[in-house]
Amino acid sequence: MKLATLKCDQANGCPVLVSQDQQRAIRIDHLAPSVLSAIANWREVESELQALYKQLNTAEVESSFAFDPEQAMAPLPRTWQWLDGSLFLSHGELMQLAFNLEPIEGADTIPLIYQGAGDDLRGPRADLEVTTEEHGIDFEGEFAVVVDEVPMGTPADKALDYVRLVMIANDVSLRALAPREMRTGFGFVQAKPSTAFSPVAVTPDELGAAWKDGRVHLDLEIEWNGRWFGNPNGGEMHFGFHELIAHAALTRRLSAGTILGSGTVSTRDRSRGSACISERRAIDIIESGEVKTPFMKFGDRVRMTARLADGDAVFGEIDQQVTQYKVADA
Amino acid sequence: MKLATLKCDQANGCPVLVSQDQQRAIRIDHLAPSVLSAIANWREVESELQALYKQLNTAEVESSFAFDPEQAMAPLPRTWQWLDGSLFLSHGELMQLAFNLEPIEGADTIPLIYQGAGDDLRGPRADLEVTTEEHGIDFEGEFAVVVDEVPMGTPADKALDYVRLVMIANDVSLRALAPREMRTGFGFVQAKPSTAFSPVAVTPDELGAAWKDGRVHLDLEIEWNGRWFGNPNGGEMHFGFHELIAHAALTRRLSAGTILGSGTVSTRDRSRGSACISERRAIDIIESGEVKTPFMKFGDRVRMTARLADGDAVFGEIDQQVTQYKVADA
Repeated sequence: MKLATLKCDQANGCPVLVSQDQQRAIRIDHLAPSVLSAIANWREVESELQALYKQLNTAEVESSFAFDPEQAMAPLPRTWQWLDGSLFLSHGELMQLAFNLEPIEGADTIPLIYQGAGDDLRGPRADLEVTTEEHGIDFEGEFAVVVDEVPMGTPADKALDYVRLVMIANDVSLRALAPREMRTGFGFVQAKPSTAFSPVAVTPDELGAAWKDGRVHLDLEIEWNGRWFGNPNGGEMHFGFHELIAHAALTRRLSAGTILGSGTVSTRDRSRGSACISERRAIDIIESGEVKTPFMKFGDRVRMTARLADGDAVFGEIDQQVTQYKVADA
Repeated sequence: MKLATLKCDQANGCPVLVSQDQQRAIRIDHLAPSVLSAIANWREVESELQALYKQLNTAEVESSFAFDPEQAMAPLPRTWQWLDGSLFLSHGELMQLAFNLEPIEGADTIPLIYQGAGDDLRGPRADLEVTTEEHGIDFEGEFAVVVDEVPMGTPADKALDYVRLVMIANDVSLRALAPREMRTGFGFVQAKPSTAFSPVAVTPDELGAAWKDGRVHLDLEIEWNGRWFGNPNGGEMHFGFHELIAHAALTRRLSAGTILGSGTVSTRDRSRGSACISERRAIDIIESGEVKTPFMKFGDRVRMTARLADGDAVFGEIDQQVTQYKVADA
């Protein structure tokens, strides 16, 4: 199934089921007032959603309408928890090599993760609002999963049972603010403004063979200002999502609707490019001794998508523009 | 006003208004389905809540009933964002001195803060469930505020306008898991299980002169297994809540219902004790060269309260017991 949330007369949007070809949508308010609520009541609503999805894909359904990704909010415009990993080791290794950083202790045996803010998640076309270019504006292309309630202490080998949906995320990062926050040991707050998500969140079965070992084995295609920037593959993730979930649930339960991200997709094959500028800058230094790639400027655009073997952009596309945010006079 | 959430037939509890003397309560579902929703619609519901509160305090209201703090959940059993500061500098200084840690860069000029998880907040009597004592079970007594939506870029001198409620928090910490997480630079996930809150959240006016300069100028009284452990004063907070809010909102808006914590209350006057065990252990080392105070054991209890000048325990009392959590066979 494919789920989305569309802008509507409700401040937090209206949940819809989207046809497999992403051409049609149908409101599901009568089953769940939000995608978050559908996740929390999955057992009650799944079979009805499945039946509706089958109808939407095979027959003309009267109350369906054309799906417009321009009208999409994040599939979950807000949720109770957003946790983001950094599970592609080549990313960290490049950063360490370029900037002479100490390797992070145990990074290959314990998933690296930070607690993000889920209160204000952005849609695939939402402007990326930043007050100043001095903050070092960067995108981070990631895969992400949405889980049902995960009991405390759930082991990794049971954790994939809780995965309900898969998405693409743009974990927007302000690189000039991150190093100080990392040095405190307390993690990111100012360096991580609102994260954006693909128009469509899909159940794992929609990915077919590309969903394997708790990883999305698809290229994440990144385009910056209309030019190819990278297509690293999600299959290179060092830990699977099941290991990330088990790590996060060791000492507490995760509420239904918790989103977990993979961290910026990264590959050891440099011909495949990068999914964030920061990594490209690290490669600049390693290859030439100096940074050649600037961060994003106002007006810049970033696009992200992932295609199944048949070319289908299964999550739809993120396409965001950086704009200058003006602080209102209070 | 005093607000609380009581266990009821709804999984997430029922919101109530509590009389000033904490003897009576009245359901407010007809005004807001949750305290979170009341915060998000404050302008629409405030005057009706005020009228009802006045009635509850001055007259017998037919639909009111005895308020039982044993039945209280957290005032917000879950919220979109929980951010916790570390704003009492003496706490950090003691930790650094005892454990030979490097001082955190800029700790006296930039508020220290971590992103917590707001998906599963616990009530004042909820068991503190931990799988093993080896995790180094600790309490942290804090003051916390709940804000309305705070626009991105809000300056500190405007930030107190957004504070709607004040509470006490027990920011439960697993000390054995924290150092590794701090060293990653990514902050706490496993080291911070569900935070617990006082039975009652109060509007700032309930604190009278004790709410000043964005600080709660009250002793936070901590009792561990029936013995006094500390009564440090909230007025010693180095940064006010307004500065914490402005810091957190620099690069993103904070959704209505965001909770911000002060960090463990701490004082330079050692005769006033501590609000967490970890700090007591640091003082052990400084005073005698060795740790004398163990962390919490299963069966231990911690109580926290704060009293106005007239002795009124304005937030009610946190009283939690540590119990062993058994991971279910899946």
